[in-house]
Amino acid sequence: MTALNLPALDRSALDWDAAFSPQARRLSSSAIREILKITQSQDMISFAGGLPAPELFPLREVREAANTVLDRYGPAALQYSSTEGHLPLREWLSARAGIDAANVQIMTGSQQTLDLVGKLLIGEGDAVLVEAPTYLGALQSFNPYGPKYVQMAADDEGIDVDALEGLLERQRAKLLYAVPNFQNPTGRTLSLERRRRLLELTARHGVIVLEDDPYGALRFSGEALPSLYELSLKMFGGPEHSHVIYSGSFSKVLVPGLRDAWVQAASPLIGKLVQAKQGADLHTPTFNQMIVAELVETVMPAQIERVRAVYGERARHMMAQMDAHFPAGVTHTSPQGGMFLWVTLPQGLDTAALLKRAVERGVAFVPGAPFFALGGGHNTLRLSFSSATLEQIERGIAALGQSIREALA
Amino acid sequence: MTALNLPALDRSALDWDAAFSPQARRLSSSAIREILKITQSQDMISFAGGLPAPELFPLREVREAANTVLDRYGPAALQYSSTEGHLPLREWLSARAGIDAANVQIMTGSQQTLDLVGKLLIGEGDAVLVEAPTYLGALQSFNPYGPKYVQMAADDEGIDVDALEGLLERQRAKLLYAVPNFQNPTGRTLSLERRRRLLELTARHGVIVLEDDPYGALRFSGEALPSLYELSLKMFGGPEHSHVIYSGSFSKVLVPGLRDAWVQAASPLIGKLVQAKQGADLHTPTFNQMIVAELVETVMPAQIERVRAVYGERARHMMAQMDAHFPAGVTHTSPQGGMFLWVTLPQGLDTAALLKRAVERGVAFVPGAPFFALGGGHNTLRLSFSSATLEQIERGIAALGQSIREALA
Repeated sequence: MTALNLPALDRSALDWDAAFSPQARRLSSSAIREILKITQSQDMISFAGGLPAPELFPLREVREAANTVLDRYGPAALQYSSTEGHLPLREWLSARAGIDAANVQIMTGSQQTLDLVGKLLIGEGDAVLVEAPTYLGALQSFNPYGPKYVQMAADDEGIDVDALEGLLERQRAKLLYAVPNFQNPTGRTLSLERRRRLLELTARHGVIVLEDDPYGALRFSGEALPSLYELSLKMFGGPEHSHVIYSGSFSKVLVPGLRDAWVQAASPLIGKLVQAKQGADLHTPTFNQMIVAELVETVMPAQIERVRAVYGERARHMMAQMDAHFPAGVTHTSPQGGMFLWVTLPQGLDTAALLKRAVERGVAFVPGAPFFALGGGHNTLRLSFSSATLEQIERGIAALGQSIREALA
Repeated sequence: MTALNLPALDRSALDWDAAFSPQARRLSSSAIREILKITQSQDMISFAGGLPAPELFPLREVREAANTVLDRYGPAALQYSSTEGHLPLREWLSARAGIDAANVQIMTGSQQTLDLVGKLLIGEGDAVLVEAPTYLGALQSFNPYGPKYVQMAADDEGIDVDALEGLLERQRAKLLYAVPNFQNPTGRTLSLERRRRLLELTARHGVIVLEDDPYGALRFSGEALPSLYELSLKMFGGPEHSHVIYSGSFSKVLVPGLRDAWVQAASPLIGKLVQAKQGADLHTPTFNQMIVAELVETVMPAQIERVRAVYGERARHMMAQMDAHFPAGVTHTSPQGGMFLWVTLPQGLDTAALLKRAVERGVAFVPGAPFFALGGGHNTLRLSFSSATLEQIERGIAALGQSIREALA
């Protein structure tokens, strides 16, 4: 060995900031995350989080499924497994969608779908069309890859497709990201006619559509609509001709803590996604996939019915309370499903400032601005109705109404 | 609504290849993965995979832990949880390492660590120092970020630090990636003196070290060595002064199918890693983290002892069989732990061609070339001794010896 005859070591800490990559510099902490930390006190009524109602979780059934899976598969339930995912689960999903298992990839939560689809499709400077407002988590996943966001106008029927048509004529785009059902954060749903037009326009202009659909099954009023992906299969002649990447998730229809989700798409995209996932986490936990596969037929349908009924009751109660307690000039969306609704205050009011008042009165929400990729929305806010009791909704909305009145005064 | 008066849709499939991002183009399928598919027939004796021995999995204990966790935590075991990870698990890890929980982040398998550390540190064209050969999965994780690989020479004591010193004087580098204990694929271990020098050299040149240590606890002969991370804490004065990012994993010391791993590093790196992980999968599955936390004290120590004993027996048997059956001019490493060893054939022999012969004789391995970031190694191969029985090792090594003799003839 060479003798250790070296100068004294510099004990100053490394300059990590200087070491971070360009993609790391584009990362930032979620504004929501910081708010959630502040509002986690015991007495706070929080409409801020996006948590499914834990009291509805099928705890006993998950427990039984975990035991069944370990009995049936033995050590294989705890061993490495294929990147594509547990075949019985992929087959169940593909049969339900009328596609092939080769068009289905299991993911570690739909957040992983956003990250890896972003990685596969977004080159630095590529235009990505997003709703305004859009799901904040998608921006966080996409940001490292350096997209150029282009905001799409929307109204109560969702994305304004006439405006989109004009936009696509002026602007080349790589990807359109949308949550067509009960959108996070607005609760809005894209109408059937607009779904068709959106698909035609994007197909014509060669824009890939990433359809994020965590809430689609949670409709509590109105009629079910086909997903963009389902429509695209009919309009374009099957899964290999679809330009839609469908992101599904078990988080809202079973439980989120197992982190099980899936993608449906044309096989060239799935093939590349498998490669990206190999490098990202090898595979989704084997045990968790097997547990979910055990529950999709026997437990999930009734679970969805239960969740729909409870969320519907909570949403209706929250809307009624807002109509009773909020001053004139404050409007809200009227979601037909999902977990969220969106409140717009008179121009000039800042919901970040309002949050401080509201927290003093014991109620929390998420200010709307972080959901806009290109800024704006300072007079908007998001409320989640999924995990509050009716009594909490009453007290919380009354307190929020008081806070708004104060801010207006 | 605007009438749907649009030209007939083009039903030709989208050109996905043209749509993929620069980072997606740098992805490729694992050579090993394709080989594993070929060799999954019933009768094949496979030394190709890197699978922990499933017959040693603590199946009953995992089952009990799963039930305990659901009883104790209820719905919280299945709910969303913090990106940083389950606090009791982070605290257990940090206490063991003598650092703060703020220096520990839970990951979804150590493959995620490779991906996200790559994302945070590798800008396009940044020099990344890797062993030759190195862990293939690291190359797959790093590749999308566009590194410029620089290979470090190595011998039976691991990385040649004299050569490294010269290299660092000529070549600015961002990151050094190494598996110091029982390396995948060679089974080699970096000596203590070289560990110190490697740390001094990299500190002096401002090169961050990513220490990948999935096998460190699986030593079956020789004396335990401190990890680079442990040494760095002593040499540089604590976790905030370390330039080592330590990647640990529960896959080889408990079970791999839960996908639970962790990182220890200075808090600025952890802080950025939390942001990257939020965008990558929100958090590691809650249930799985709680199960692992339940097992680390009560089950893991005995599990490690059991695995060490069995792998040691298998490794010694494989080495004895090779010494008996392999022709002169074929050499192998002599690992003191882990799951792998490395065989070098005479120059000119191609192990990809040898694999075809060997598979005909009912035995499989992984050719060595894919483990070299910059090519070469065509006369090398990797054998895994972790999941074969002694009898399979006898038959398999005899058959492989025959195949090598044939190829030499």
